[in-house]
Amino acid sequence: MKKVGVSILGLGVVGGGTYKILKEHAEFYRATQCVDIVVESVFERNKERVEALGIPPEKLASNIAEVVLDPDVNIVVECIGGVTDAKDYVLDALNAGKTVVTSNKELFCKYWHELERAAKHHNAGLFYEASCVGGVPIIRTLLDGLQANEISSIVGIINGTTNYILTDMAEKKISYSEALAQAVALGYAEADPAADVEGYDAAYKLSILASLAFHTKVPFNKVFREGITDVSPTDIADGAALGYALKLLAVGKNTPAGIEVRVHPAFIEKGHPLASVGGSYNAIFVTGDSVGDIMLYGRGAGELPTGSAIVSDIIYAATHTELHYATFKNTAAPDKNVNFVSDFASAYYLRMTVADEPGVLAKIAAVLARGNISIDKLTQRVSDDGKATLVVVTHMTHEAAVKSAVAKVTATGLAEVNSVLRVIL
Amino acid sequence: MKKVGVSILGLGVVGGGTYKILKEHAEFYRATQCVDIVVESVFERNKERVEALGIPPEKLASNIAEVVLDPDVNIVVECIGGVTDAKDYVLDALNAGKTVVTSNKELFCKYWHELERAAKHHNAGLFYEASCVGGVPIIRTLLDGLQANEISSIVGIINGTTNYILTDMAEKKISYSEALAQAVALGYAEADPAADVEGYDAAYKLSILASLAFHTKVPFNKVFREGITDVSPTDIADGAALGYALKLLAVGKNTPAGIEVRVHPAFIEKGHPLASVGGSYNAIFVTGDSVGDIMLYGRGAGELPTGSAIVSDIIYAATHTELHYATFKNTAAPDKNVNFVSDFASAYYLRMTVADEPGVLAKIAAVLARGNISIDKLTQRVSDDGKATLVVVTHMTHEAAVKSAVAKVTATGLAEVNSVLRVIL
Repeated sequence: MKKVGVSILGLGVVGGGTYKILKEHAEFYRATQCVDIVVESVFERNKERVEALGIPPEKLASNIAEVVLDPDVNIVVECIGGVTDAKDYVLDALNAGKTVVTSNKELFCKYWHELERAAKHHNAGLFYEASCVGGVPIIRTLLDGLQANEISSIVGIINGTTNYILTDMAEKKISYSEALAQAVALGYAEADPAADVEGYDAAYKLSILASLAFHTKVPFNKVFREGITDVSPTDIADGAALGYALKLLAVGKNTPAGIEVRVHPAFIEKGHPLASVGGSYNAIFVTGDSVGDIMLYGRGAGELPTGSAIVSDIIYAATHTELHYATFKNTAAPDKNVNFVSDFASAYYLRMTVADEPGVLAKIAAVLARGNISIDKLTQRVSDDGKATLVVVTHMTHEAAVKSAVAKVTATGLAEVNSVLRVIL
Repeated sequence: MKKVGVSILGLGVVGGGTYKILKEHAEFYRATQCVDIVVESVFERNKERVEALGIPPEKLASNIAEVVLDPDVNIVVECIGGVTDAKDYVLDALNAGKTVVTSNKELFCKYWHELERAAKHHNAGLFYEASCVGGVPIIRTLLDGLQANEISSIVGIINGTTNYILTDMAEKKISYSEALAQAVALGYAEADPAADVEGYDAAYKLSILASLAFHTKVPFNKVFREGITDVSPTDIADGAALGYALKLLAVGKNTPAGIEVRVHPAFIEKGHPLASVGGSYNAIFVTGDSVGDIMLYGRGAGELPTGSAIVSDIIYAATHTELHYATFKNTAAPDKNVNFVSDFASAYYLRMTVADEPGVLAKIAAVLARGNISIDKLTQRVSDDGKATLVVVTHMTHEAAVKSAVAKVTATGLAEVNSVLRVIL
């Protein structure tokens, strides 16, 4: 039976989960995968974590060189996070010819070229299933399950924290800050939630997934990003009345005009399979030219789901000696011009406060019409203070046209525009 | 660039779709997969199919020997269906050392051992993603995406025809025979629908999927099977009023008592992700010990979705030279005793017609109680003829206990039992 030595760098949530899974399943993997996976060492500065997992002290490496120079270590699992130490350690491991399995989406999306170059040069494997959507094997699916397809679109709920907050806001009709506080208290959000609620985490993942789906390296800085911090329960309720659910969506499209990648809150029709993905669950909806629509749904985070992705990568690496790397138009030909679309097409939801007097609606409609924006749905409600709330859902239009129309409506004092949200049709 | 020669046997729906995909994507696969896939030959008795696809006559093989002896053919794609010719041809190809890609669930589940033995003996690959759930890459996911997990349960809607019929019955409140007639007219059901509506198709697929999920070869004849021909719109409506959707479910469980595999109509709570899978869509809900719950959703049939699975297998075979076969407890040790559970645990829905008179309900409840069956929900409605309809949903109990209780209720004349359906909790 093939024996494979593993070293785990970082024993936080994901590294700890990985250790637990490997320990509890060693006999199972020998029986079902014909591979003997042995944790040769761990590297972790926090001794309490090492003790809590019951790891014998002699397995604790005192420095990274001990790990990468150990001939018994075949696979280095990086679960440190961040881009400083993690990058150095991953490069050290690859340069020593060790296969690397990582859950680090930020590191991977920012330094993909560099890591892959080192891996290829030293004939090492590089696996990153756990970097995107926890236990859901979306990367393996894109590489080895849907590769017959030209993929035109991926739309996903790929951040569990924001989906938990938005689901809570919708169900309990509470504010963003109330829902955030509850999510922090329950461990669904970090004390500093910026990476999640500002959409960075989803944008890192989208950069990776869109690259694989569209065979073009999509840099993180090309992803349009808008978080959920300004989402109001009023919008969620108004959208619900029109038949929509509000989600933080990651949208990637491969269009004749170029690649379009964006992360923002968006309304989606309640009949769509993504609309009912609630709580901390994630899902990715992929459209391919042969397969049609397909969706993967599951836990996007957590020690055991993410550990499942890491260990599946370890087993894959242990049982396949051939190395495979995804092919990108702009890797083989770095100068190849890839166009990124910033003025993307979408339908829009606009909530405005207007004076409740004759002619206002006609003037707003005229501004929209001059911007070639046509109205699909419109509702109006009058409040006690003589103001009216106008909710408009447009037909398909473009981001720039809507921004321009909103600026005109605001500048001319016709209305206070409270919210502009995209609607996925 | 690696060149791979393919021969397609059978140009019906799936074989024709495979040919179209390969033809239209040849340049795409060269660019993204670095592989040049060439259809060297086809084998098909119906000349019209060959012409309709625009295949040059010289590519039409006149017999199977021409295909399997052709040194330019590396991969033989079997899309003939059935188990007579298809089995001989697949064995001929494997014995000639050709890798085989097949969509033939019946052939595969009935002769898996024999085909795999031939493949291993002749160092040939054997791929069967297209045999289960069309374009949804559930087999690749079980083999290479979730292999870190001990899987306890797979529950799926894995037959598009029956899901189309049941969705139509629920939405239009029509009978089974009306819905079947419409499905046949629209091409969603075959003129002879038995393989679908009697549950054979789903049982073939469950035999394959449960084998992979539980690492134990699950013979087709161990699958409990009940079709949808007796489903009535009354039950669908009564179930809907209680919050359930009716689906033909394939259920596989790995329990301490043994493996449980069954295909039957079942109620499932409307909040469950499977409940909203409508029309001809399919979905499979998998529970693993690390990943938790995960679902794959997509088109379970059709020329292009199933072709997507076949071509993804072709690309996988073309780009991986190492051969991998799943490991089964009862392959390495054929005598290994695998226990199959026939008296499975479930909740039940019972619809009965009773005389609308005092004491009847108490007597029925007493029969159920003597069988250790406790009642979760109960509704009663009285019709004009002095009869009452009683709908009972039980808590978890066992198949044998319910059958015995139903026999007692019937034998004592307490009620006419109109329907017995399982409820998935």
